[in-house]
Amino acid sequence: MKLQIFKHPFVILALASSIVTCDITLAKSHNVKTTGSDKPNVIIIFADDMGYGDMSNAGHPTIKTPNLDQMAAEGQKWTNFYSAASICTPSRAGLLTGRLPIRSGMASSQKWVLFEDSPGGLPQEELTIAEALKEQGYQTAMVGKWHLGHLSHHLPTNHGFDSWFGIPYSNDMDRNEELVTQANNGKEIKWYEGTHWSQTNSEHWNVPLMEGEAIIERAPDQSQLTKKYTKRAMKFIKENKEKPFFLYLAHNMPHVPLFASPQFKGKSTAGIYGDVIEEIDWSVGEILKTLKEQGIAENTLVIFTSDNGPWKLFKTHGGSSGMLTGQKGNTYEGGMREPTVMWWPGKIKPAIVHEIGSTLDLLPTIVNLAGGDVPNNLDGYDLAPIFNKGQGSQRNEIIYYRGTEIYAIRMGAYKAHFFSKHGFFGEKIVHATPLLFDLNVDPGEHYNISVDHPEIIEQILAFKTTHEKTIVPVVNQLERTNK
Amino acid sequence: MKLQIFKHPFVILALASSIVTCDITLAKSHNVKTTGSDKPNVIIIFADDMGYGDMSNAGHPTIKTPNLDQMAAEGQKWTNFYSAASICTPSRAGLLTGRLPIRSGMASSQKWVLFEDSPGGLPQEELTIAEALKEQGYQTAMVGKWHLGHLSHHLPTNHGFDSWFGIPYSNDMDRNEELVTQANNGKEIKWYEGTHWSQTNSEHWNVPLMEGEAIIERAPDQSQLTKKYTKRAMKFIKENKEKPFFLYLAHNMPHVPLFASPQFKGKSTAGIYGDVIEEIDWSVGEILKTLKEQGIAENTLVIFTSDNGPWKLFKTHGGSSGMLTGQKGNTYEGGMREPTVMWWPGKIKPAIVHEIGSTLDLLPTIVNLAGGDVPNNLDGYDLAPIFNKGQGSQRNEIIYYRGTEIYAIRMGAYKAHFFSKHGFFGEKIVHATPLLFDLNVDPGEHYNISVDHPEIIEQILAFKTTHEKTIVPVVNQLERTNK
Repeated sequence: MKLQIFKHPFVILALASSIVTCDITLAKSHNVKTTGSDKPNVIIIFADDMGYGDMSNAGHPTIKTPNLDQMAAEGQKWTNFYSAASICTPSRAGLLTGRLPIRSGMASSQKWVLFEDSPGGLPQEELTIAEALKEQGYQTAMVGKWHLGHLSHHLPTNHGFDSWFGIPYSNDMDRNEELVTQANNGKEIKWYEGTHWSQTNSEHWNVPLMEGEAIIERAPDQSQLTKKYTKRAMKFIKENKEKPFFLYLAHNMPHVPLFASPQFKGKSTAGIYGDVIEEIDWSVGEILKTLKEQGIAENTLVIFTSDNGPWKLFKTHGGSSGMLTGQKGNTYEGGMREPTVMWWPGKIKPAIVHEIGSTLDLLPTIVNLAGGDVPNNLDGYDLAPIFNKGQGSQRNEIIYYRGTEIYAIRMGAYKAHFFSKHGFFGEKIVHATPLLFDLNVDPGEHYNISVDHPEIIEQILAFKTTHEKTIVPVVNQLERTNK
Repeated sequence: MKLQIFKHPFVILALASSIVTCDITLAKSHNVKTTGSDKPNVIIIFADDMGYGDMSNAGHPTIKTPNLDQMAAEGQKWTNFYSAASICTPSRAGLLTGRLPIRSGMASSQKWVLFEDSPGGLPQEELTIAEALKEQGYQTAMVGKWHLGHLSHHLPTNHGFDSWFGIPYSNDMDRNEELVTQANNGKEIKWYEGTHWSQTNSEHWNVPLMEGEAIIERAPDQSQLTKKYTKRAMKFIKENKEKPFFLYLAHNMPHVPLFASPQFKGKSTAGIYGDVIEEIDWSVGEILKTLKEQGIAENTLVIFTSDNGPWKLFKTHGGSSGMLTGQKGNTYEGGMREPTVMWWPGKIKPAIVHEIGSTLDLLPTIVNLAGGDVPNNLDGYDLAPIFNKGQGSQRNEIIYYRGTEIYAIRMGAYKAHFFSKHGFFGEKIVHATPLLFDLNVDPGEHYNISVDHPEIIEQILAFKTTHEKTIVPVVNQLERTNK
């Protein structure tokens, strides 16, 4: 697509009339744009289902993440950084487009995500970070999990990436029913139960490993995935160090089934989940080391985060939300607040950042840094002023969608839940009077203060109404059955 | 008391015959003792009711603890370090004596702690760290909360400290009923309820501020406590830098009622609890800065930890256990696993330490470092080999007493709960088959694996039986009514 195609040019106008006091046009006025040769390289490292509490610098008592800890010490750990959804497909759509997934039809209240038989995918008219950076002369590569449509026209190479090596969806799809039944001794089990989860047989999942639009392997050895992705990423960095590049490295891990290479398997003290996180941490270290060795660290922004909260459904094969309530699939903080580190030697001032940020902000931040024009149909803000100028975030609100419904909204310190659910399968609970939490004082969402602050609930409801007016019906890509 | 007085010389023999495989006589064989002038200074900074998740390096998203973070980066953050009890008095008795509080009569299943009308206190025949270090020529000072008996003969200056400035018990004792009733508009309230907790009137609590054995002020301005304690501690350090010294700085904060000085009140984004923690963090920074300025940092071991888990009963006036279950008053991890940092430039190798440690280990560790003879009636181990030699901990087990009953035992990665309770007031739950958790893989104690590992429960039960034989009935200091 071309940059000038915007589906919802009115969005920004509607938002500007809301009660949000921050200036959302700052992206145009505040930032120093880069020109010519100083366009920075950008790397987004995206973990899958990694929890807020899974880094040692986030307090995990047994998982060791020395590379992420070092990255955080040299860069910024963001403690209030959110994914665009609490589940995979919409989260990834939001990250790559800077737009709430409901706008692109990439969220559904009926279907969690795109499945291996889903014909839908990210619409062509959506602008991705990769497309925007192509316009600025970037080399672009994706390595890893896509999950925005597996039919050819939906694949990364048709969304702005020069190359792609990876798996089109989650590593637990294309299940081989015969093998899985065998692995469970013929027992009838629910999809999330069974002993096959803790086995190390990649053949249980007949997922395709792809190069561009070609399947190069079926049911690849998943214990090699993190290693293979890392090697590919390093190769791309080395081969493109002369040009500005954008690399989107989206690990399939630590999504179940968990696989670590022999170098890591059984080596952590925290079980297979710890092994897997420690291999991802190793991978982060390899990427940063490569940038330093190639002499391009000072010109490369690296962002590490995760797509949604930990999948506690799988118990010790799922991660931890730390002190946060919630997990993958729900809209408590643990479902959408992510372990996040930003790194750019000399350009990002080392700090622990408490400002609010979102993966929705990555497109405007990155495109602006690259010298491009930031589209005006976005739900994101430029975060770069926080990197080294000590400025506050332009983002004051988080909208927590579960599918196409708004379950909760954060405005400043306050979060109102209109609906909620517990766990992954929990029933939808309607809060006639919304629950209200002060996330600064009560990040764990334990102490409802709605009785004390009806005026804040009113403000948030007004914002909700204004926001909802900006939502235009589109084809639902997760629910559609026609190609 | 004299070093040669040991009440329970058989204890070590009994333990040696248990199933614990680690060598508990290592304290005598493995450690390099210091001699003469190289005796290190030792400072223990003890917070009150601070939770495992309350440091930013432990993942707290809004509380800022830059000084503790720096201390952890320069030293060791211990992620499996325990207090001796989940409540104040027994925890402090354990820390100062290196012996389980039940041995000194300082634990009770009937009374939580010593109260302002309790005649009991730490028995004279108990050896404290201060007494042991006096024998090695140390200057010793205590600043802050004591809580091991408020009658003159129980006070710090009669337990080895050359000086003491502080409050003899918790800052919520000696309650002024008239003022508190006024503050609650004459309403009848339970002791833990009421609006007075969130007020800033120190007069509600008529606690004595003492200098040695003399009361110098009653109902002191509690907003000045952390500051006053810090100044006293700094003064002591400066005045004693030529001699080896031992300083026990036990803050009254963040125990309720919460008070911060004007410099910190309202300054954190995390409410009054955040303000209080940030002032304690400031205090830590002042202490370390003083050591550096005085040129004695390289000869000073500083240990920061807390007496028990956060008092969640007080909601946003209590802290967080991070990803751990439990809190003050119960024996889930959050009740007794503490935010812990050890610092000694050049002698402690910077690391995140996952080894098991306990405040019970501080006496043997410190006395050995000071060149003294480590008594043989202790429940502690020398931790110094972990500081810079990369050795594993000699400690393999944690015994979780609630009062005089063993509620749980950790052995290696595994923890068995024989009894448990939730919250602070929760009913005692009897587990006919003990709950069993793998704390390495499941630090949050969510997934009971007792069915899979009866043999581990057997081992732990055998250890429990052996241990219980070492317990000798003594006068219960918390329950006694006679002076």
